[in-house]
Amino acid sequence: MDPFRFQVEARAGRARVGRLFTPHGAVETPLFMPVGTAGSVKGLMPKDLEAIGSQVLLANTYHLLLRPGPERVRALGGLHGFAGWKGPWLTDSGGFQVMSLGHMRRIDEEGVVFQSHLDGRLIKLTPERSIAVQEALGADLIMAFDECPPYPSPREYLEASLERTLRWLERSLKAKTRPDQALFGIAQGGTDPELRRRSTLETIRFDLPGYAIGGLAVGEPKEAMFAMVELSTRLLPEDRPRYLMGVGHPEDLVAAMGLGVDLFDCVYPTRTGRFGSALVPEGRLNLKNARFLEDRRPLEEGCDCYTCQTFGRAYLAHLVRAGEMLGGILLSLHNLRHLHRLTEAARQAIREGRYGDFAREFARRRFGREVPPWFREALAAGGHW
Amino acid sequence: MDPFRFQVEARAGRARVGRLFTPHGAVETPLFMPVGTAGSVKGLMPKDLEAIGSQVLLANTYHLLLRPGPERVRALGGLHGFAGWKGPWLTDSGGFQVMSLGHMRRIDEEGVVFQSHLDGRLIKLTPERSIAVQEALGADLIMAFDECPPYPSPREYLEASLERTLRWLERSLKAKTRPDQALFGIAQGGTDPELRRRSTLETIRFDLPGYAIGGLAVGEPKEAMFAMVELSTRLLPEDRPRYLMGVGHPEDLVAAMGLGVDLFDCVYPTRTGRFGSALVPEGRLNLKNARFLEDRRPLEEGCDCYTCQTFGRAYLAHLVRAGEMLGGILLSLHNLRHLHRLTEAARQAIREGRYGDFAREFARRRFGREVPPWFREALAAGGHW
Repeated sequence: MDPFRFQVEARAGRARVGRLFTPHGAVETPLFMPVGTAGSVKGLMPKDLEAIGSQVLLANTYHLLLRPGPERVRALGGLHGFAGWKGPWLTDSGGFQVMSLGHMRRIDEEGVVFQSHLDGRLIKLTPERSIAVQEALGADLIMAFDECPPYPSPREYLEASLERTLRWLERSLKAKTRPDQALFGIAQGGTDPELRRRSTLETIRFDLPGYAIGGLAVGEPKEAMFAMVELSTRLLPEDRPRYLMGVGHPEDLVAAMGLGVDLFDCVYPTRTGRFGSALVPEGRLNLKNARFLEDRRPLEEGCDCYTCQTFGRAYLAHLVRAGEMLGGILLSLHNLRHLHRLTEAARQAIREGRYGDFAREFARRRFGREVPPWFREALAAGGHW
Repeated sequence: MDPFRFQVEARAGRARVGRLFTPHGAVETPLFMPVGTAGSVKGLMPKDLEAIGSQVLLANTYHLLLRPGPERVRALGGLHGFAGWKGPWLTDSGGFQVMSLGHMRRIDEEGVVFQSHLDGRLIKLTPERSIAVQEALGADLIMAFDECPPYPSPREYLEASLERTLRWLERSLKAKTRPDQALFGIAQGGTDPELRRRSTLETIRFDLPGYAIGGLAVGEPKEAMFAMVELSTRLLPEDRPRYLMGVGHPEDLVAAMGLGVDLFDCVYPTRTGRFGSALVPEGRLNLKNARFLEDRRPLEEGCDCYTCQTFGRAYLAHLVRAGEMLGGILLSLHNLRHLHRLTEAARQAIREGRYGDFAREFARRRFGREVPPWFREALAAGGHW
């Protein structure tokens, strides 16, 4: 039996609850994946991630390629043997970080040459090398090597880039040898509907176990982003998981889940936590604000995370001001739990056929009377508004 | 009944196992107290400290006085209500940090005026103010305001300073109002046997619920330090807990427990953990060393802490190199557990009347054939060697 079976278990409009089987356990979608850049979700122990309901962790090929190196991770049993998280892992292809972090030197048909941000070494990443690295890392879900153009980019560039990404997908697939890893293709095309459509249709011709919507959440307006998510989810096959890369704001999750997106990842909840902010239904609390210094309430009433069950805002505000690392840790834990609770509540609402109510209740608390048009339109397109 | 009863439950030579009752629970001695400088043991959640057997946490009056301020902590329920640790707390008097961290401006009979290291404010700390602050913080065990002279200091200075410390103890006691807090007196005297004896004898005349051995572990040779510990523990009453301040190296604990010391504290296990080192029976592993990058073994064979049960040295070495905060967190957790296991094993050895065997076995692993004379002499003076 296919180790990567995906079953849609319930539907409400275009939203769905699914179950994705992997060699390291089955997970329920929609779900949010915490980012463990260098094989560690910053400041959090795997046992704490398990306790808050994390299901899949994401690690960055770029970071692990530079340090400690894929062969070392392979020798130590891959990510599962190395990093203490025994559930499923996903690795990205490295392409995005090469472009955003590396000092890129050259991009051509063959691949990308870049300079390590750590020691200046010149490193070449090609589809074949990206897959070889991801095979050494041993994640359950791996990504094809793609090019993610910046926003905005000229149409000709988007077009040339998406064609190259398709050729790189073909090479990625050919390079792949391990049957216990599922390769996801990534559709590009920027915010150009015609290019996005072409990229998506060409990508799904490869009949892959899962598809990613790439090249979004890179600075474009929300309207443009959700027009692309709407278009993509209409084209992607119903029986494969859909992964919207790099998205982690709660309102984006609610809109995208309504359109049938299944997987999300973002550094946002942990990074904003380390910077002193907490996610709550109303938006975000900046714990540096003096008004929290005497506030005994938990970050979020009704939250079941250790942070909310144990500490008041006053203590957390004190830790943030004092620069105590525990502040960022406790906020990261809460922020991840906040996103996990959001997807759990969404799954339940979908199962109960009331995703529209769920989204409206979310909007009421998050936006008050001024629900942004992009949000309402995405929900309407999903059949919920 | 006295809420601070101390019972000696077992003896082996001069070592003893005791039980100290406090308003927030009874604890077993000898014990090591993790330091939660600003009300947080850096990087560790209270639940993790509980899981590794921490019994008492120490917070610094100096740090909490500057931020968030004692009145704020009082309003939030004291340290117990504020900081998530429901077991006993100990606060120091602030004197030590004033001298080591503050820009001291003046010390006289009245007290100390210093400049905050945070914002340059001038702050006055007197025995009365130190006790008022500690009452607001609400720890179970509080310390008299003392002066801790640097090493070395001229005899005349040590003498004047210990006399002043005695007058400050008297004022500390007079200022104290809360019956649910036990005030410990601190004996000084540097490494001068005559002054140390005088300070100790004058201090115990106050018939206090506990006594601290202060002014040691400030740079003096081990021989001089343990000569003072030996002298102090001979003079201190058998039925009161004895606290050797600022001591946290495993070999120092083993020598001092053999002489009948009951309480210890030090930032060493967490600070050295954040700096990338792990405590093991043989000494210390520096995880920055390249030889650990492929070492799959746990930090310490047989250790029951989460770090050792979950991760190999290779992963921890990777985290340390990558500057991932989880590295320091996992090493701090192990290092504290290492010290707690050391005191647990010592308690068992004392109960079983074989502390000498315990200390020799410790020395064999820690020192090999070259047991330092100060260690052997301290153990011999305790009746174990």
